[in-house]
Amino acid sequence: MTEHNLQHTIALLTRTPAALDALLRGLPEMLTSRNEGENTWSAFEVVAHLVNGERTDWMPRVRMVLQFGEAQTFERFDRWGFAQESQGKSLGQLLDEFGRVRSENLNELRALNLQQEDFKLRGRHPALGVVTLSQLLATWAAHDLTHLHQISRIMAHPYRDAVGPWNAYLGVLQCGGHSAPVQQLQGEDRETR
Amino acid sequence: MTEHNLQHTIALLTRTPAALDALLRGLPEMLTSRNEGENTWSAFEVVAHLVNGERTDWMPRVRMVLQFGEAQTFERFDRWGFAQESQGKSLGQLLDEFGRVRSENLNELRALNLQQEDFKLRGRHPALGVVTLSQLLATWAAHDLTHLHQISRIMAHPYRDAVGPWNAYLGVLQCGGHSAPVQQLQGEDRETR
Repeated sequence: MTEHNLQHTIALLTRTPAALDALLRGLPEMLTSRNEGENTWSAFEVVAHLVNGERTDWMPRVRMVLQFGEAQTFERFDRWGFAQESQGKSLGQLLDEFGRVRSENLNELRALNLQQEDFKLRGRHPALGVVTLSQLLATWAAHDLTHLHQISRIMAHPYRDAVGPWNAYLGVLQCGGHSAPVQQLQGEDRETR
Repeated sequence: MTEHNLQHTIALLTRTPAALDALLRGLPEMLTSRNEGENTWSAFEVVAHLVNGERTDWMPRVRMVLQFGEAQTFERFDRWGFAQESQGKSLGQLLDEFGRVRSENLNELRALNLQQEDFKLRGRHPALGVVTLSQLLATWAAHDLTHLHQISRIMAHPYRDAVGPWNAYLGVLQCGGHSAPVQQLQGEDRETR
């Protein structure tokens, strides 16, 4: 990942909270609390998961790479950690929080003033083994996009029958999610289905 | 589709322009003009396609159902009609236009003051045959979500390699699109891959 691409990654990371805000805030709760069936998430839960990741996953791991390199393994990211995160909160509160913590994290990332050679620094992932700082930062942005992809599918779910014969033309209604093989999912984040 | 669900559909349709604006405006052009390979669309082209749909597809078809019922077949929607739509325009201009034409169309839709019995009204689709007004309106919203799903995938595309071993965990990177069978695609809109 070049310095140039870090700027792309930051450009994407900067936009996600406002995009989700514009998409979700003020929608009828029936739409945002609805999931795709057993063991799947609602849009509300996805936003809570994104807030949780800001606190416990991305920047904490960046710090670990810079401080300890491969010598210390990242803490496992708890895919269900959002449950505590969201308790008693409204979607509006979570969207506010996501905007705030993302902005704080990007300020911290910018202040690190990472240089080309830093991107090769290595850390240790509990399941994946050695990963680079560059891969970690790229994953942060791709993770946002995975959940935007998921939210568009969750919101479309109630339309499966309602669209009638148009169903076959609408890609999002054909998407059943794209899960990683189960053995890779131990304690790790992925798009839920 | 009940009156209540029409309100859900309008709530979703209202939010798409602002969500795409927040997601895309001001991004480096390299990101918004990039596609997923031959015969696929960039985010820029998807926005142009959405503007084109506002002008030539959704409300014109609603009007046809109300005026002619099954007696007159909808005009085919030109999936590539956006090329003319976007000529010489910037992404910012297209986003402005999408917001404006969507808002005009929703004003017109609201002014129709559709009642429960209207949703059963029928029109004739050039490929699908008889469809109802309810199905047409539901498809309008699901079509927005299909393209949000697609844009999240397009934006994630450059990250396929950059995320390294995290690739398997990120659903959007596994998504190759969900095309309808080719014989159904004659002149009709669908998510491109």
